[in-house]
Amino acid sequence: MAREKKSVTMMATPPVRSGRRATSYDVARIAGVSQSMVSRCFAPGGSIAPDKRERILKVATELGYRPNALAQGLISGRTNMVAVLISSLTNRYYPEVLDELSRRLTERDIRVLLFSLNAESEVDAVLGQVWRHSVDGVISAARLSDAQIRLFEDHNVPLVLYNRTASTASAASVCCDSTAGERDLVGRLLDAGHKSFAIIAGPEDSYVGEERRVAALARLAEAGIADVPIVRGDFSYDSGRSGLHTLTKGKIPDAVICASDQMAIGAMDAARIDLGLPIPKALSIVGFDGSGPASWASYALTSIRQPVRRMTEAAVAMLMERIEDGDTPAERRLFAGELLRGGSARIG
Amino acid sequence: MAREKKSVTMMATPPVRSGRRATSYDVARIAGVSQSMVSRCFAPGGSIAPDKRERILKVATELGYRPNALAQGLISGRTNMVAVLISSLTNRYYPEVLDELSRRLTERDIRVLLFSLNAESEVDAVLGQVWRHSVDGVISAARLSDAQIRLFEDHNVPLVLYNRTASTASAASVCCDSTAGERDLVGRLLDAGHKSFAIIAGPEDSYVGEERRVAALARLAEAGIADVPIVRGDFSYDSGRSGLHTLTKGKIPDAVICASDQMAIGAMDAARIDLGLPIPKALSIVGFDGSGPASWASYALTSIRQPVRRMTEAAVAMLMERIEDGDTPAERRLFAGELLRGGSARIG
Repeated sequence: MAREKKSVTMMATPPVRSGRRATSYDVARIAGVSQSMVSRCFAPGGSIAPDKRERILKVATELGYRPNALAQGLISGRTNMVAVLISSLTNRYYPEVLDELSRRLTERDIRVLLFSLNAESEVDAVLGQVWRHSVDGVISAARLSDAQIRLFEDHNVPLVLYNRTASTASAASVCCDSTAGERDLVGRLLDAGHKSFAIIAGPEDSYVGEERRVAALARLAEAGIADVPIVRGDFSYDSGRSGLHTLTKGKIPDAVICASDQMAIGAMDAARIDLGLPIPKALSIVGFDGSGPASWASYALTSIRQPVRRMTEAAVAMLMERIEDGDTPAERRLFAGELLRGGSARIG
Repeated sequence: MAREKKSVTMMATPPVRSGRRATSYDVARIAGVSQSMVSRCFAPGGSIAPDKRERILKVATELGYRPNALAQGLISGRTNMVAVLISSLTNRYYPEVLDELSRRLTERDIRVLLFSLNAESEVDAVLGQVWRHSVDGVISAARLSDAQIRLFEDHNVPLVLYNRTASTASAASVCCDSTAGERDLVGRLLDAGHKSFAIIAGPEDSYVGEERRVAALARLAEAGIADVPIVRGDFSYDSGRSGLHTLTKGKIPDAVICASDQMAIGAMDAARIDLGLPIPKALSIVGFDGSGPASWASYALTSIRQPVRRMTEAAVAMLMERIEDGDTPAERRLFAGELLRGGSARIG
């Protein structure tokens, strides 16, 4: 390795020889034990006589020896890394999810190996990397097919799905009940007398986006409303703003149902600022997520808030259980969303 | 390991024996070569005769053998992981930075090991973890002391600082020129006739927050303006909103300078919606970052946009150079910010 060429002055870790880090071999030699005993001493649960452990730890401290996580991973079978699969769109427009997941894993002294996908459908390309890095487990906020979920079983890698479930394979999952939340929101719009609707949906390969679109359409169909115009966005403000322009080219609908808060915010600005349509007088707009900006006073969005703290807490706890005991059976935890009564919609 | 107890059906990787993954030993045995030759075959740059390589790869494919990244890391000295140190506040209120960094590293088939800090001052607690995981390099968007920067040299771990520089230690860094940007913004407010100012600063341990506060105060001092009221926020909307309430309890200043866009947006809502002060007529408000919401039509914030794509591209390129060649000398790349002429301030 090129960087070994560099001559270094050891400051934090006293050198054994100048310019070199102490190895387990150095510790073994000076402590008068075998190298494998040094390895066992630093492996979690490694069995070793107390007096030898003490001697090894003393020498290791003197030499500034730090067991290498790679080598330790080979011994213990644990890397203390958890892969998080998440789409770049979620990261960017709903950063609370990754922030809370990484916070909670860090509290348990576990590192997040981040797999940020340009689209949820890219999962196949990264799974090989997931196996190669020998992570202790995976939390996936990206869509996985049943065949992909079975690969986790084949590789003995514990998996928890975040905000998506498997259709036939059995997998642990934590979800906000998007279907119930969206049905509630649409039901309230119907109760308040809205007659015509339009939808700004997410990308076709977004699990939660599709769940919300399907739930809204199903609830509207129950009320006898069909032929609902739909445009697709990418969860961004800009796509919500241009989506509203498209949807208002003909007749202006009474209510626009958006698959995310940022799209709803873009739609609000298009209506109020670009088109001069007062909200909610001329037009009701609802979102989904309950992200930070939904509560900003200029928007005060009517939306469904996902209980992201409880959901991330549950996802991490479920994954830890499965890392400790691979026989833990599949479980699905479904959290109810909370109605945010903002001022962007007339609701019952 | 508990999870090995589980009986598995191998689907993706044909089994050697039922319920067990193929190892390098299996490949070696069947290909009739030594185990170390199998290792070399899969190590980047490993030297091996072409006919043996072919035979090993054929057997490996048949057995579904996947070289373990841990073991490979021990052989090659590369883990293809880069640690990104970033504060949770940045993640949450300016997600573009992590999103762009992880995108660019992923393009190079490198994984991000995420160190999300509750505060920038928490770095000490995580450095031990950074060494232990044997990452190939580190990009730090968290503040590092000169002593901490020297530890990277001691451990031979290439480092690139993102939006911060070292005061005396030599380190590679990529920055937006916050000082020049903030001076420009304040100069334009002065030119437009603003006489009284107030500042909503970031947390004391935020490098960029302090850089912006100091630059604004210095430029105001040059214009003979001292005794500038300052409140501190945490870069969030809520802290900007409450900050403005505090700053307007006595005389209302002509202009409020905010250390981040989300605080400026909170301050705008406090002024317009809570206090009925029209912007920019009664009060000018400026931010810093040029984040997504700064351009939303309801705010149209006057701010300095950091060229985050160019900066993250440069940070990753500089880190890769230093991973390839540890002797690459320190370099500082300073990018100019771009003035966003929004409608939230009267500027010259």
